[in-house]
Amino acid sequence: MGSALFGKLVLTGARGNLGNELRAPLSKMARELVTTDILEAPAELLPNETYVQADLGDYDAVEPLLEGAEMVIHFGAIVDERPFEDLHLPNYVGAYNIWQAAWRHGARRVVYASSIHAVGMAENARGIDTDEPHRPDTFYGLAKCFAEDMGRMYWEKRGLEAVCLRILSCTPEPQNVRALGSWLSYRDMVQLVTRAIETPTVGFTVAYGVSNNDRAPVSNHKVGFLGYKPQDNAEDWAEALFAKAVAPDPQDVAQTRVGGPFAAVPLGESGIEAIKRMTEGKK
Amino acid sequence: MGSALFGKLVLTGARGNLGNELRAPLSKMARELVTTDILEAPAELLPNETYVQADLGDYDAVEPLLEGAEMVIHFGAIVDERPFEDLHLPNYVGAYNIWQAAWRHGARRVVYASSIHAVGMAENARGIDTDEPHRPDTFYGLAKCFAEDMGRMYWEKRGLEAVCLRILSCTPEPQNVRALGSWLSYRDMVQLVTRAIETPTVGFTVAYGVSNNDRAPVSNHKVGFLGYKPQDNAEDWAEALFAKAVAPDPQDVAQTRVGGPFAAVPLGESGIEAIKRMTEGKK
Amino acid sequence: MGSALFGKLVLTGARGNLGNELRAPLSKMARELVTTDILEAPAELLPNETYVQADLGDYDAVEPLLEGAEMVIHFGAIVDERPFEDLHLPNYVGAYNIWQAAWRHGARRVVYASSIHAVGMAENARGIDTDEPHRPDTFYGLAKCFAEDMGRMYWEKRGLEAVCLRILSCTPEPQNVRALGSWLSYRDMVQLVTRAIETPTVGFTVAYGVSNNDRAPVSNHKVGFLGYKPQDNAEDWAEALFAKAVAPDPQDVAQTRVGGPFAAVPLGESGIEAIKRMTEGKK
Amino acid sequence: MGSALFGKLVLTGARGNLGNELRAPLSKMARELVTTDILEAPAELLPNETYVQADLGDYDAVEPLLEGAEMVIHFGAIVDERPFEDLHLPNYVGAYNIWQAAWRHGARRVVYASSIHAVGMAENARGIDTDEPHRPDTFYGLAKCFAEDMGRMYWEKRGLEAVCLRILSCTPEPQNVRALGSWLSYRDMVQLVTRAIETPTVGFTVAYGVSNNDRAPVSNHKVGFLGYKPQDNAEDWAEALFAKAVAPDPQDVAQTRVGGPFAAVPLGESGIEAIKRMTEGKK
Amino acid sequence: MGSALFGKLVLTGARGNLGNELRAPLSKMARELVTTDILEAPAELLPNETYVQADLGDYDAVEPLLEGAEMVIHFGAIVDERPFEDLHLPNYVGAYNIWQAAWRHGARRVVYASSIHAVGMAENARGIDTDEPHRPDTFYGLAKCFAEDMGRMYWEKRGLEAVCLRILSCTPEPQNVRALGSWLSYRDMVQLVTRAIETPTVGFTVAYGVSNNDRAPVSNHKVGFLGYKPQDNAEDWAEALFAKAVAPDPQDVAQTRVGGPFAAVPLGESGIEAIKRMTEGKK
Amino acid sequence: MGSALFGKLVLTGARGNLGNELRAPLSKMARELVTTDILEAPAELLPNETYVQADLGDYDAVEPLLEGAEMVIHFGAIVDERPFEDLHLPNYVGAYNIWQAAWRHGARRVVYASSIHAVGMAENARGIDTDEPHRPDTFYGLAKCFAEDMGRMYWEKRGLEAVCLRILSCTPEPQNVRALGSWLSYRDMVQLVTRAIETPTVGFTVAYGVSNNDRAPVSNHKVGFLGYKPQDNAEDWAEALFAKAVAPDPQDVAQTRVGGPFAAVPLGESGIEAIKRMTEGKK
Repeated sequence: MGSALFGKLVLTGARGNLGNELRAPLSKMARELVTTDILEAPAELLPNETYVQADLGDYDAVEPLLEGAEMVIHFGAIVDERPFEDLHLPNYVGAYNIWQAAWRHGARRVVYASSIHAVGMAENARGIDTDEPHRPDTFYGLAKCFAEDMGRMYWEKRGLEAVCLRILSCTPEPQNVRALGSWLSYRDMVQLVTRAIETPTVGFTVAYGVSNNDRAPVSNHKVGFLGYKPQDNAEDWAEALFAKAVAPDPQDVAQTRVGGPFAAVPLGESGIEAIKRMTEGKK
Repeated sequence: MGSALFGKLVLTGARGNLGNELRAPLSKMARELVTTDILEAPAELLPNETYVQADLGDYDAVEPLLEGAEMVIHFGAIVDERPFEDLHLPNYVGAYNIWQAAWRHGARRVVYASSIHAVGMAENARGIDTDEPHRPDTFYGLAKCFAEDMGRMYWEKRGLEAVCLRILSCTPEPQNVRALGSWLSYRDMVQLVTRAIETPTVGFTVAYGVSNNDRAPVSNHKVGFLGYKPQDNAEDWAEALFAKAVAPDPQDVAQTRVGGPFAAVPLGESGIEAIKRMTEGKK
Repeated sequence: MGSALFGKLVLTGARGNLGNELRAPLSKMARELVTTDILEAPAELLPNETYVQADLGDYDAVEPLLEGAEMVIHFGAIVDERPFEDLHLPNYVGAYNIWQAAWRHGARRVVYASSIHAVGMAENARGIDTDEPHRPDTFYGLAKCFAEDMGRMYWEKRGLEAVCLRILSCTPEPQNVRALGSWLSYRDMVQLVTRAIETPTVGFTVAYGVSNNDRAPVSNHKVGFLGYKPQDNAEDWAEALFAKAVAPDPQDVAQTRVGGPFAAVPLGESGIEAIKRMTEGKK
Repeated sequence: MGSALFGKLVLTGARGNLGNELRAPLSKMARELVTTDILEAPAELLPNETYVQADLGDYDAVEPLLEGAEMVIHFGAIVDERPFEDLHLPNYVGAYNIWQAAWRHGARRVVYASSIHAVGMAENARGIDTDEPHRPDTFYGLAKCFAEDMGRMYWEKRGLEAVCLRILSCTPEPQNVRALGSWLSYRDMVQLVTRAIETPTVGFTVAYGVSNNDRAPVSNHKVGFLGYKPQDNAEDWAEALFAKAVAPDPQDVAQTRVGGPFAAVPLGESGIEAIKRMTEGKK
Repeated sequence: MGSALFGKLVLTGARGNLGNELRAPLSKMARELVTTDILEAPAELLPNETYVQADLGDYDAVEPLLEGAEMVIHFGAIVDERPFEDLHLPNYVGAYNIWQAAWRHGARRVVYASSIHAVGMAENARGIDTDEPHRPDTFYGLAKCFAEDMGRMYWEKRGLEAVCLRILSCTPEPQNVRALGSWLSYRDMVQLVTRAIETPTVGFTVAYGVSNNDRAPVSNHKVGFLGYKPQDNAEDWAEALFAKAVAPDPQDVAQTRVGGPFAAVPLGESGIEAIKRMTEGKK
Repeated sequence: MGSALFGKLVLTGARGNLGNELRAPLSKMARELVTTDILEAPAELLPNETYVQADLGDYDAVEPLLEGAEMVIHFGAIVDERPFEDLHLPNYVGAYNIWQAAWRHGARRVVYASSIHAVGMAENARGIDTDEPHRPDTFYGLAKCFAEDMGRMYWEKRGLEAVCLRILSCTPEPQNVRALGSWLSYRDMVQLVTRAIETPTVGFTVAYGVSNNDRAPVSNHKVGFLGYKPQDNAEDWAEALFAKAVAPDPQDVAQTRVGGPFAAVPLGESGIEAIKRMTEGKK
């Protein structure tokens, strides 16, 4: 990896699992790193890191953070399916607040944690490219559709670049048979975000966040210019995970759609819980 | 036209220009027509019409209207570009409220006044089909993208049908040279809504609301099953409109994109005013 | 219509409804018309018509009919869904027998009564072109897929031309609401077959057999060179048919797929009976 | 038709069959019409017409004609297949000279007589759209490919608009069975050029020059915004033309490719002569 | 590889070259393996293997084998081009018998040895994906088209899953220059079948059976979810095979189409013999 | 690599950087190698090499070189943007001269150094395949479009094969951040030319000349049959090149289009100079 040094970067959702993984690498890419979340500050900060506790749904709280920023890495959101009313402020309005504040302050790019759930109802077996049209599986995924369309508009109307990373299953290890295809290791996630930052121009770009899995159901071959080359492969866990799997119903939406259990749960009900049930094999 | 008689239909935005045109034909298609808008009731109601003044952004006000409805014809919204904050409740949350209430009450279909502005940044000269991906030109258009994606999701997850009508320029007469392509007569608009209601099954369908204009820049040939056969043609106004037109800059976004002046105005500024300026030739 | 006079034409299935309609127009296009079916000869023959009773499943019976023929119009088959075992000889082997005999005798073209059921599982609402891939809905439709693929092969390997006419609902009048889209009038069917015969070169071509219906769910716009311009429109029956229709379940396969009731019946069970039930509104 | 009045228009190839038909309508659309050809001036000029005899292959002769022009209608070329060496100056360099001179003088648009022979090797039976990739059938057609690609480049790099009209068979009457599909009447040709001029913005656009023939093998449905609605139909000649036609070999390139006889002649040999042979039925 | 243990698997064509290679790995994946072929039993059986001699064309002989099976791996067929009459029972009716019996007994999946010859007339140089439409090169290939279409129908109508493996050239070593692209090693064939079995849900899926050859003319990138990662590469034989190759005619169908010599032989004549002639360089 | 030995090969542009790299490997592939350029002979010739000084724009000088040749590797041209008048003879007419002479002498194939600039205006971020339509960025690129279209025509009309190699940035080392995607090492260039020669049949094929770079913006996955497997990766230079890069304007055409600086320079002005300016960071 060979990125230039950036001035100020802003990271939202810094107390989430993925955000926390990004703090160290981002702090090395920039002279100044501002991190934020709705939670309290982490116990220890990195040398060039400033933490600001803020609610993404509150524009006035968010706007000042972007002052002077080159890019914002927007990972802050509720990361599960909930009723629309619960996601409305953090996931929808929050995304608007970030793009609007970034534009107000002349930032050049938003790197956005979108999600596979923006296209979660697409059939696994069809071969999904980065120009797959929106087929959200949840209100959670619908918020990603909203932000992606907004990102395209800010690029076409206001010249603010965006890279939307449709992350699949980002966990320390693959959790279940579905994750043999959908896993994204932390190391690969960091590489993907790094590439999204350092690529000189991106316009509006969508890429999938998935490791170099043998069974990956989505393809980044149309965004080769980003140079994302994942290094990890969920296949190392295949034997162990197959051993505890149950043969699914061929019609099981949780297996046949790229959104997995999110595609199967009723709207508004937790997809994370459904993944846990799948992982425990009690599905 | 030969539609069956429906039970209860609900029309939102009934005091708007288009909504008002729909009241009479809808009242003939159903035993009961409930109309609603944020304004006061019209001076006179049709025999089977009930009017309820309500704010679309208020779920509790909207929900009871849908009780027992077969379909809702959702035309209520602010019909112009505005800052996101202004459109947020009526156009975004309002659309959610309608779909959610329709589902709660077991309605079978939403007929939605979407807009060309959901794909307004698409180039006129490319040939736009109904599966054109979202390219909103305004926050107004972005709300249509949001509602279309939500409509697809409610169909795929909850079995609630939707027809999203991407209306171009629905006015009594074509206003300017651009409208030679984009005009939708009131008569054709009524036909399109009628077809969207009477077609037995629609799943999730997108169609363009445009008359049978010689210069129409969009095509409905992939949704032939709807049977929409517009009868009016803006070409009758061609000579008069060309006579007062000014030769545009070849790069003029207001001419080269299907969104017209909405594609050219800064985000948050009135597109209607921009259309007026184009129409007056002072662009 | 302005076709040249042909030498010898052969028509199979001449005692079927459609075949019977074709006898007179074909006899005018050729010096000699040989008609055949598994039934006995019709009461009266046309001046240049020779009738031969023959079983399509019997190659030795079929082969001599093709001697010296320029083209064969192959309409003979069981025209309903049945168990594979019942369709096997007449619909599968019968088609092979015709193509093979045509080739043996140096005929230049097969005009084949294929069927919408070769793609019957395709969704009505998607916009179906003539290059839609095979998605048969019945063993009946699968036989059409088999014959179409064979027709392409005989063209590519042996230079025998073929036009495969995917006929939708060919009846004297449209029978039900679905037929508002799928109807093919006898007059338009005759035009389509005439065009398929008189077009100078066709290679391997697929076209839909559907009238000029407002609600046609399939499009021939990629085979414009055939010059098929249907004149009838099922819309004249719309009011009457809607009046006796029942609102279908939005998930009803018989309405959402282009194959209609054939798409809904269990494999091997009569689709014609299912259409009758739909027509009677008792579905 | 309702076009605005233009300032100065330039027409090349004004002494050719098509160019001559354009003189009168163009003179009505502009205050000043400059016509040019390699031949001597026509016997009579129109009131606002200036004729300049010039060789398109000579930049210095061409350049002054474009001074102050709004648009150039470029129809000048050798209109037949010839060895590359013969076409090189008039058809290749001549096209460059026109685009370059138009740009030098700040003209806004080139309306170019391209040709079906830019895609002449495409199969008739496939359904050809305006984005069909180049498949020239002759050096004549290759010159059209060159000019189209140049036209796109002048648009993308220099902002000079272009409409490339891929004309099929423009004659007073259809000449042979192939022309039942490919005919372009003079009246429709004039309409097409008029639309190409009066459409407010065109960027880089390709359209087919074909009448409203029942058997048209190409489609303009992706350039609906131009508003070209041909009025003539070669079908009126069908009976007469079929009467004298000979059944072609199914492999006959002159029938199976949209380029017709040009697709069949050896490179460098006259396609016009081949069309005559086809028309005379001696093919 | 990490597959779960299956109950009962059935393998047809067990005495063929490929079938024989599959016996051992399949026996390890299941508690019970039933193998069958038209030939006598192999000299030695594996511990959990039961062999039944049966004719695929005889439904009554085939049906009992499927009782209680989870999946059937259907490799039984005549593996060469022959007249239709010869292939009819084993390759066409045989495939029907397997699918029908599998459905009757509630099996969940058919893994089918389809063949490149289902699309054998496709041009090598075009880039062939798994959704390439059928273009059979032989009656042998046409039987594969029939079975694939049937497989899609059984999935869509009856919920029986299928993976159709379009095998290219499965031999111990690559035989000739064409096989530098088309070779499938036994080891990779076993992996592909294993993946087709162990993938939790497949719906209806088509994949190519080709090794990791530098020169592979087909791509599996749309079925990445299967996780097929071939390990062998025919390139190791390149020097030796080029050394004895003869420069082919550029028009040689045996080289330009993915079907190779099968694409070149007359229908009904042995393709295997043609491959031998190519391999011996006497083409 | 395992190519057969060829008879006579001809290499044009042999004194250019790329041509010079090809001399040694080509001399090993053939019994006789004829090299040519407009410059004087190189100081030393290889054992089977004959050098002829010739001007590509002069047909009579070029034609004799092709006598008895199996293939011509056509790399001769001015390799930079210039006014059309300067490129006209060497790049346009020169290409014609090579194809025409090759055909005259019965050569079987032209391997042509085309260029990314044939599609240089295509957006980096879209994923460019080998069937990307022409979008030249310069007169230099337009000459490549002309030659590619001519090559397709010579194949379709005269059976002369062609492989057009759209080379990106072929230099000893990657020069700048853009080259992290576009670099083609000399070693990979030689492999690509070798594959283009040794592949048994190619018809008309387009392939990209790019190394195995992490950030390659174009894909050869549709021409897998060529077996081009590049070995070098510009990523080794990433850190060094990023260190001296300047953050570009998001709208910078030199970064957002695959043509790079050529896409940004005014037509007719040197692209090589623009690349130097980019490389020096003074852009």
